[in-house]
Amino acid sequence: MAIEHASQRPIEKAFPQTNHPVLPPIPASLINHRVITVEEAEQLIAHSLESLPSETVSIEDARGRVLRETLRADRNAPPFNRSTFDGIALSYAAIEQGHSEFPITGTAFAGSPKLSLDAPNACVEIMTGAPLPDQADCVVKVEDLDIANGTARILEGTPLSRGHGVHPESSDCQSGQSLLKPGCRLTAKELSIAASIGKSELLVSSLPRISIVTTGDELVPVDAQPLSHQIRRSNDLALNTALASAGYTQTRRFHIVDDLKETETVVASILEQSDIIILAGGISKGKRDFLPEALESAGVSKSFQWVAQRPGKPLWFGDYTINDRKSFVFALPGNPVSCFTCLHRYVLPALDQISGLPTQATQYAKLKSDFQFKPPITLFLPVLIEHDTDGQTWAEPLPFNTSGDYISVARTQGFIELPQSESNFASGTAYKFRPWQS
Amino acid sequence: MAIEHASQRPIEKAFPQTNHPVLPPIPASLINHRVITVEEAEQLIAHSLESLPSETVSIEDARGRVLRETLRADRNAPPFNRSTFDGIALSYAAIEQGHSEFPITGTAFAGSPKLSLDAPNACVEIMTGAPLPDQADCVVKVEDLDIANGTARILEGTPLSRGHGVHPESSDCQSGQSLLKPGCRLTAKELSIAASIGKSELLVSSLPRISIVTTGDELVPVDAQPLSHQIRRSNDLALNTALASAGYTQTRRFHIVDDLKETETVVASILEQSDIIILAGGISKGKRDFLPEALESAGVSKSFQWVAQRPGKPLWFGDYTINDRKSFVFALPGNPVSCFTCLHRYVLPALDQISGLPTQATQYAKLKSDFQFKPPITLFLPVLIEHDTDGQTWAEPLPFNTSGDYISVARTQGFIELPQSESNFASGTAYKFRPWQS
Repeated sequence: MAIEHASQRPIEKAFPQTNHPVLPPIPASLINHRVITVEEAEQLIAHSLESLPSETVSIEDARGRVLRETLRADRNAPPFNRSTFDGIALSYAAIEQGHSEFPITGTAFAGSPKLSLDAPNACVEIMTGAPLPDQADCVVKVEDLDIANGTARILEGTPLSRGHGVHPESSDCQSGQSLLKPGCRLTAKELSIAASIGKSELLVSSLPRISIVTTGDELVPVDAQPLSHQIRRSNDLALNTALASAGYTQTRRFHIVDDLKETETVVASILEQSDIIILAGGISKGKRDFLPEALESAGVSKSFQWVAQRPGKPLWFGDYTINDRKSFVFALPGNPVSCFTCLHRYVLPALDQISGLPTQATQYAKLKSDFQFKPPITLFLPVLIEHDTDGQTWAEPLPFNTSGDYISVARTQGFIELPQSESNFASGTAYKFRPWQS
Repeated sequence: MAIEHASQRPIEKAFPQTNHPVLPPIPASLINHRVITVEEAEQLIAHSLESLPSETVSIEDARGRVLRETLRADRNAPPFNRSTFDGIALSYAAIEQGHSEFPITGTAFAGSPKLSLDAPNACVEIMTGAPLPDQADCVVKVEDLDIANGTARILEGTPLSRGHGVHPESSDCQSGQSLLKPGCRLTAKELSIAASIGKSELLVSSLPRISIVTTGDELVPVDAQPLSHQIRRSNDLALNTALASAGYTQTRRFHIVDDLKETETVVASILEQSDIIILAGGISKGKRDFLPEALESAGVSKSFQWVAQRPGKPLWFGDYTINDRKSFVFALPGNPVSCFTCLHRYVLPALDQISGLPTQATQYAKLKSDFQFKPPITLFLPVLIEHDTDGQTWAEPLPFNTSGDYISVARTQGFIELPQSESNFASGTAYKFRPWQS
């Protein structure tokens, strides 16, 4: 059997840095076929996951990737005493001695080698970013000067001090100092640091190879005219788009018709080429839900199949091992909003974890109106978000809609998580909030 | 003179939908050379901007783009009475008449044409997503059934009603109904709606053609070994990365050495090919700050050059017109943090505005500790953000650092805006907060 990728990529089982809490595993006996809680599902997934290998990429391609090395300053920053103004550089001792007029003996430009002061009470013109002469320790702004006939006169009343206008060598950092640690997402500011220390290549987590699989004979492509009993496929695009926004761009998409043989063939081939498989639909109790059987016959080990949550009760999770490398299957419900919610609640955090990111800080939002939900399950409730001028975040639930369509959800910014243990949710109480990927 | 693009793109002066407040313009006499406030700068920019033309793109390429048409349902959603469970479909009247056993006369699969009920007290097996027979108005879950010998018996005590398990035709929306309006950013959920109504192509705002220009002889490329008086270039990468994260990917980068002739040549050529020009550095009062002169001689009309803010006082903004199409120049300070802050405070909102997005809702965060800042200017203060469990957002200022390096800023999530009119900022008071592009 040809194993794509697996043999060419280094296996790193122990990831150098993570802050995922180590919890005791849930005994298999407890979860065998029963409907588990959201917290149990989260824990089972987090325990199962293993980190991705690393790879080296160009700094130009590193946006959104997760750093896997420590970045250290290659020299002091700034590398010299640097002028922060356009003006003149001089020795403050001369001012202390009562001098206010200084002959200009040169001009220091940014990017030109360092000048020196010819005499204790001389000065050089200096531009922002230029290195100060060794003997200079003060910069007077051009606005505070009267310059004529090669002499600069400091205007009376100009407040000055030793170090004025000087950004001292090594005041930002010293050569060798750690600037960025493994496990951070590389955004503009991190890449700016990498650029400033000359790291044109960076060690990052590999992008997970993600396969998105939709199932269902009722689904036709976007550009097809559906018959009256058909609908257009949208889950694959929604999943792919949200994944791309989160930085997970290495995806492939498949659609399987409701046929056991085809399902088995496609599943077996996809398993070989994926770190994460996201299935949408076909996992419930229907007569043509062939995925559970196909996954089992392909050797995927089921961890759980039902979670006490709405939407998203039929959420299947399992893993499989090829060539000593573990990969993971999330089978999400086919209902679009269920599918999208489970992506955000389970799959995106899992992708962050295997990429080496620490768990994101939880956000909370206050309910804007009372809300009731009786069933003893966790409710993921799409909400409109308002930020008030007092720094508080408010969540207004949508009129309750069990149909799972996107039309009303499009107005929302994310969902709050109403815990299983309660059924009356009072206005003003804060609950966990997760934003949709934008 | 060859005008790239300009003649091929439709000019749309009046954008169909915007919620930018219409304020009276600031008289030119008021802003001539003086240092203006942050609010004046914001207002001058917003008044000057004009919206981009539109173009048609494939739905697969539309992520992050701004919609410029109304999307309407092409048919009812759902298009038929749809089963939300796997189970049996029947007429609720039969249950009202006391029936609890139903002969199964067929199986309705998702994606197969609609069946019909053969008799008033018959049923069909039905799968999630399948159309109900016309005569059926209730679905009983497979878990609530005992099926044997072609007959389904409803388990005693199963709560049922007319409409149970049915997602009624047109309950999500009716054919022709407006689903999305112009001016929304196309994320996963909006694209899912577009897919479901068969919009494989979408009318969106053109991407602005952005030129990023760095200046300064002291700057060397990332992969070069700088001499002691040189530093590596990072502003262009930081700007480009943040712009890409915000969806503005049509960028080109230029570096100009400190030479008037070259500056004039490059500026003139860039002006012809850009909707927005972002300059980093070279705009202050230094002897080799050739940009003001080059911009003026290229015909760029300056709106303002100095803003009462820290960081970012030397912020230059102007516009120019080629072939009846207006374009815009933002000259940002060369100091990395000043440059990055001004990008977020002025340039990104301007790009959103010309793309047709409404102004983003302002976020606020509460100061975590007292803070003093005496100068009568607006302070943009990088902060560490904490979300507490009560739905409040807290902002902890970094130890104050005027040097403008990225090293400390990398730990922050954005900046708060402390207004010019105050100098004592009390712990617990909320101020405007802007996150860095992630």
